[in-house]
Formats: sequence, structure tokens, C-alpha cells
Amino acid sequence: MSTPEPGREEGRAGRVAIRAAGAADFATLWPMLRCVIRAGETYAIDPGLSRAGAYALWMEAPRAIYVAEVAGEICGTFYIKTNLPGGGAHVCNAGFVVAERARGQGLARAMCLRAEDEARAMGYLAMQFNFVVETNRGAIALWQDLGFETVGRLPRAFRHPEAGLVDARVMYKWLDG
Amino acid sequence: MSTPEPGREEGRAGRVAIRAAGAADFATLWPMLRCVIRAGETYAIDPGLSRAGAYALWMEAPRAIYVAEVAGEICGTFYIKTNLPGGGAHVCNAGFVVAERARGQGLARAMCLRAEDEARAMGYLAMQFNFVVETNRGAIALWQDLGFETVGRLPRAFRHPEAGLVDARVMYKWLDG
Repeated sequence: MSTPEPGREEGRAGRVAIRAAGAADFATLWPMLRCVIRAGETYAIDPGLSRAGAYALWMEAPRAIYVAEVAGEICGTFYIKTNLPGGGAHVCNAGFVVAERARGQGLARAMCLRAEDEARAMGYLAMQFNFVVETNRGAIALWQDLGFETVGRLPRAFRHPEAGLVDARVMYKWLDG
Repeated sequence: MSTPEPGREEGRAGRVAIRAAGAADFATLWPMLRCVIRAGETYAIDPGLSRAGAYALWMEAPRAIYVAEVAGEICGTFYIKTNLPGGGAHVCNAGFVVAERARGQGLARAMCLRAEDEARAMGYLAMQFNFVVETNRGAIALWQDLGFETVGRLPRAFRHPEAGLVDARVMYKWLDG
């Protein structure tokens, strides 16, 4: 067993390579993002958002964007951004998407661990997920396992296309650990 | 005692007239907003935000902006906007500023009651305050009195210029009452 190279993590899917995303990656990311956006089940994003709108949201608004590759193929992406300016600027927000075909293989975990490291390196003191939909049980379990606490519960704050009005959680982790 | 006219509320300051804001009001609003922004004690806004930045934030980004007048003089302002798109779009956010000279006279209460009515009329089902700084005791007491519940507490999420890292609350009210 060798020590993972910098920038690589051992996922259950095998080697996961995480690198900064470039504008050219969006052609690959868009089908993954579109799938999540159109479903409207996990993110509070307009399900009809255009490709250009998704580009602005995912590639332009954040401070840093990454892709995760398994066997050289992009299977996931995440961003890091400052959650609020001014007195709130020491807290970052991050968002994660895993390609449907690559789910259940530890990719989200590898991306979140890397996001925490990157956020620490940028000087952030905490990471906040503003809106984790209650029906998104896999995400909640993973964030909890990674040390994120549920610090808020927004009653009926999300209209799920099938479940109707459901709660959303605010989850939070101090990063100085 | 006469019934208050539509658009007017009885504040302790006397008649409060609340009306939609126009671009021309910003010349009056800017000193009020600047005072709050520069202080950096209650809003997670860059304390150095420019006048143009404040215009974009307060007058352009929200869905609706209002001013509150006492004796014909603008003493307060608030906005209403959709808190999150997509499945979160039935929840609005609002922000309030009272001129320093007009504080303690019930203006914020009058504005919040009006904001709730306006939000209901726009079809929103709930109002969420994303970030109420723990040291802002007056605001917390008022929102609680008006039926807002503390549904989240963000640990050390705000860097107060004097108190250092303090918590912020997420406060929330369902509007179908």
C-alpha cells in the first residue's frame, strides 16, 4: 500500500483525483449539473435554469471550483465560496454534485474532505451548508459522519416535487479541528 | 380614534406611512444604510461597500423595496426578496434599517408587520431572517415578539467589530397565521 499522492484520495471507486476546474470542464459538468437541477429534489435552484445560468452559478459565482476524476473521467464537482461578506466572511459555503453513474462509491466523501482542506488553506474558519433538504438522507448522513452538525431546521422551507413541503437543515462545521 | 388609513400604522412615533421606494429615494436612504453598513455590527455586509454597491444590494437585488415616513420624513426602509429559488421560492427574506435618530419608536415593528402583509400578498408562505447577529438584542426581541422563531443558531458565524466572534440566529415565521 502506497501513500496517496497529493491531490489523490483512495475512494471505494479507486483513485479519485481532484483538481481545480477550468472553463473547458463545463461541457462535461453541464449534463451532471443539469440532471440534479432538472430533478429539483436536492438543491433550491430553478429547475428550468439554463446552461448559461448554471455556468454563472457554478463556475463564476464561487471562489473556487473543482472536479473529481475517477480513472481520468470527471465524475463529480464541488465549489467553495464565501457564505456571507463582511462579518460573516470567515465562513464558507460549498456545494457538491456527483454524476448519477458514480454515486455510492465514496466520491462525495472524498470531495468534502478535500473541500475542508482547501477551505482551511484559504483561511476559512467554518463551513456552512445553508439548505440540506430533509429528504436527501444520504447527504445528511454523510455530512453528519464528517462532523457537520445540524444547527438549524427550516420548517417546510423546500417544496419537493414528490414529497411536497419538507424541512431543510442548516449544517455547520468548525474547521479548526 | 379613527381607523388607520390603508398604508398607515400607528407607531409610538405617531403616524407611520409606508410606501414603495423609488430610485429617487436612495439619496435619502444612503446615509441611513451607510451608517449601518460602516458600523458592521448587525449585517453581514462588507463595511466598505460603496454607494453603488449599496444601491445594487438594497434597491436592485430585492423584489420590492419600501420606505417608512414619519411626519413626511423617511426614517426607515425595508426590502422583500425571494430567499432561495426553485423549491425554496415560497420563503421570502426581508431586511430592515431604521435611521439612528428614529430608533426606539416602534418603526421596525410597523415595518415588519407591513412586510408580512406585503409578503403574504405576493404569495409567500414564510419569512426567513438568515442571519440575526446575537448581539443585536433589540432585533431578536422584536422578531420574537412578532412570532419569529429561532430555528437555527450559527456558532461564531459573525465577527463583531468589538465583541469578536459571536453567534448568529436563523429566525423564521410561517405566514399563514
